[in-house]
Amino acid sequence: MDGLLAHLRQLLGAAGFREDGDLSPWEKDWRGRWPGSALAVALPASTEEVAAVVRACAAAGVAIVPQGGNTGLVGGGVPDATGRQLVLSLRRMNTIRAVDVANLTLTVDAGCLLTQVQAAAEENGLLYPLSLAAEGNCTIGGNLATNAGGTQVLRYGNARELCLGLEVVTPQGEIWHGLSGLRKDNTGYDLRDLFIGSEGTLGVITAATLKLHPRPGAVMTALAGFSDLNAALRLIDRSRRALDAGLTGFELMSAHALGLVQQWCPPMRSPLPATPWTALIELAAATEAQGQRQLEELLGDALACGDITDAAVATSLSQAAQFWALREAIPRAQALSGLNIKHDIALPVSAIPAFVSETHAALQAALPGCRPVTFGHLGDGNLHYNVQAPEGVEPATFLREQEALVNALVHDRVSALGGSISAEHGIGVLKREELARRKSPVALQMMRAIKQALDPQGLMNPGRLLPD
Amino acid sequence: MDGLLAHLRQLLGAAGFREDGDLSPWEKDWRGRWPGSALAVALPASTEEVAAVVRACAAAGVAIVPQGGNTGLVGGGVPDATGRQLVLSLRRMNTIRAVDVANLTLTVDAGCLLTQVQAAAEENGLLYPLSLAAEGNCTIGGNLATNAGGTQVLRYGNARELCLGLEVVTPQGEIWHGLSGLRKDNTGYDLRDLFIGSEGTLGVITAATLKLHPRPGAVMTALAGFSDLNAALRLIDRSRRALDAGLTGFELMSAHALGLVQQWCPPMRSPLPATPWTALIELAAATEAQGQRQLEELLGDALACGDITDAAVATSLSQAAQFWALREAIPRAQALSGLNIKHDIALPVSAIPAFVSETHAALQAALPGCRPVTFGHLGDGNLHYNVQAPEGVEPATFLREQEALVNALVHDRVSALGGSISAEHGIGVLKREELARRKSPVALQMMRAIKQALDPQGLMNPGRLLPD
Repeated sequence: MDGLLAHLRQLLGAAGFREDGDLSPWEKDWRGRWPGSALAVALPASTEEVAAVVRACAAAGVAIVPQGGNTGLVGGGVPDATGRQLVLSLRRMNTIRAVDVANLTLTVDAGCLLTQVQAAAEENGLLYPLSLAAEGNCTIGGNLATNAGGTQVLRYGNARELCLGLEVVTPQGEIWHGLSGLRKDNTGYDLRDLFIGSEGTLGVITAATLKLHPRPGAVMTALAGFSDLNAALRLIDRSRRALDAGLTGFELMSAHALGLVQQWCPPMRSPLPATPWTALIELAAATEAQGQRQLEELLGDALACGDITDAAVATSLSQAAQFWALREAIPRAQALSGLNIKHDIALPVSAIPAFVSETHAALQAALPGCRPVTFGHLGDGNLHYNVQAPEGVEPATFLREQEALVNALVHDRVSALGGSISAEHGIGVLKREELARRKSPVALQMMRAIKQALDPQGLMNPGRLLPD
Repeated sequence: MDGLLAHLRQLLGAAGFREDGDLSPWEKDWRGRWPGSALAVALPASTEEVAAVVRACAAAGVAIVPQGGNTGLVGGGVPDATGRQLVLSLRRMNTIRAVDVANLTLTVDAGCLLTQVQAAAEENGLLYPLSLAAEGNCTIGGNLATNAGGTQVLRYGNARELCLGLEVVTPQGEIWHGLSGLRKDNTGYDLRDLFIGSEGTLGVITAATLKLHPRPGAVMTALAGFSDLNAALRLIDRSRRALDAGLTGFELMSAHALGLVQQWCPPMRSPLPATPWTALIELAAATEAQGQRQLEELLGDALACGDITDAAVATSLSQAAQFWALREAIPRAQALSGLNIKHDIALPVSAIPAFVSETHAALQAALPGCRPVTFGHLGDGNLHYNVQAPEGVEPATFLREQEALVNALVHDRVSALGGSISAEHGIGVLKREELARRKSPVALQMMRAIKQALDPQGLMNPGRLLPD
């Protein structure tokens, strides 16, 4: 171990290696749920240095925890408590390597912040559409390692769909030069998609070639209120048929979720009269006038046939930002009102009404008075279905005592309806055991075989993703 | 071997097992390049029967060649000449299992024809956009096993992007129930995309859940003529910015390619005066009037600034069909004019002008008078860059004597410009050795490790895709 540390010290220099002092920025996740202890922190400045670090660790039998912006929600990017795992931070690798406007591609180091990637696209008159709450702190490498989602998936897909090629350091410390700006390439197994979403357990993503899109001429935002989720499905269907790829977002907020925002984040409040459900609809159009016309026609038809009871179209960018702020404030309002039991589930969109009513009934039967905070990316079938303690029950106690029961109730309904227990946050440490219970044994067996084949020493982010 | 045959005979019954008589429909590829000899042909009627066949073959150590519509171009779906490989045809599994309109998904057996899948979507007012020349004969299972492309990739992606979940029989004869209608699911390694494009070498795809899209209100088609490929890039850029997701096709045809159509497929001919290059542009719009307006504006601007010299917008469905027929007749016109040396290459779109001029110069230097037939899906960077013998040279002789040299010249340029030697046809037998020469050794090593991990007996479509 001492030999390894000395080797890394020399290899990476003072700027690239931290072993003393406060390592907590790399050791603690931001929710503070899995505080770990690192052997040391390597901060390589190039792909070659990453490869050298991995080779040295492989020779010494030391485990590596790759880390980007350390904004993950499932404990996948921080070391465990043993003090024997090396954190490999990609943050110093943050160069925009190349822009190819005619090919609509951007090649970037893994440690670039998501906002930096967005800005590089924008400077070239183009759009990199991945967008999520942590975008100012998360890295593109982390986004790819976890296949991040966010608010534009409905139109543009997850991080997976926005990536054409990768550069990866393998667990053996070799460099796979898989950067590629190709839309089509049928030359063998899809290694790119195998690394995307593998949470650092198969190798280290060091760079990526990303897919860009034209910037829409105008983006319009509206709120619509309605009384039941079947009406929401009809509204989505109507929106898709009317707008096709112009529909870029369809977010859902329950009355309780908006009530929390109003209570904990004043002066924010919905401009609509209270209804059981509110949708935020976002539309991209060639011009503002066209978008306005399309939205008014869409919402007018939905009002006329009774699917929605009220609607508001944002008439300025600042009003559109206010509508989005309502949606984005929900997690903060929830946190301010106390701890809660979080879920990040996906379902077929068609199964959402049944899920919400059945799960609500099951929760009320088991834990009368508990309060689901239902919101999320309805257009993708992705709900953040979080559960608060009943009025008057201490949130921390509720979390401690009821988390297992609530998770079981919620995830049982998810499984029964063909859903996923992790839509966009990944597995990490948090859901490893749950994955073992929920995932098909045949799939788990194939995952283990692939892990064993590519990382036979088991040194890449051990203890994450794959159940023991 | 006799025990296996007796077992399969009993398991599958007369309708499901063929060992005598003419097996040539399953043994010969349609180009007639790799005529094989099968041990027998299994035609299971259910996933359970597929699994039983695979288990029996695994126990007997007999190799399996999965087969769909047998329309492949690279020899990946026919048995070798030894008479020891079992053809496993999925053609009897051809049921549309389920449609979920609200979720925009369709679940189908692997043996459904592509046209059957398209029709099932259409009957529900929706679109399954995969479309290619063999659509009346190829199966969706084959499309997924080879990650098929076609004419709508620019807007909707390859077969990969149009699939949400798979059901697969593993090489051990277990069933992976990976059918899923989820847009988001981050619960472990992306097994779906590993099987897509693996050409039957990792298991047998038995069913899939496919992604549907709204049907556009109107589809418009235009032809535009121009004199150089840099103008084509400007036209693509202009089209993308003006139409965004409305741009569904951008096909390229050289003057020589259109000349072959005029010569060999009369009375077809382009309505435009001859120019070095012609593009076919397809646009989806909400209404015909809107599409007409958008196209006229786009082409008017391109004419005004000199990027194109002439254009024609189809004013009826039959005229649009005539425009497409020109593009689709090129392979037939070529075949009628004699054998040629085919390529299916992908490049960054930005590299296409350099590729075409450099390769043309290299070919003329080496083989004066040889005639490239340049056409393809320019919007995706995918060219079918086929090379004809010089005038007066016997095509078969040219193919026999010069194929290796021409392939080397073409593929060297492709490699130098960061391209792929197989954009949409796959590797099969045809390009296995070329893959060994062109693919990164690190990638090949990972591919071999994955193959070994999932199919340690090496019985799934051996001799295809992976170089020895």
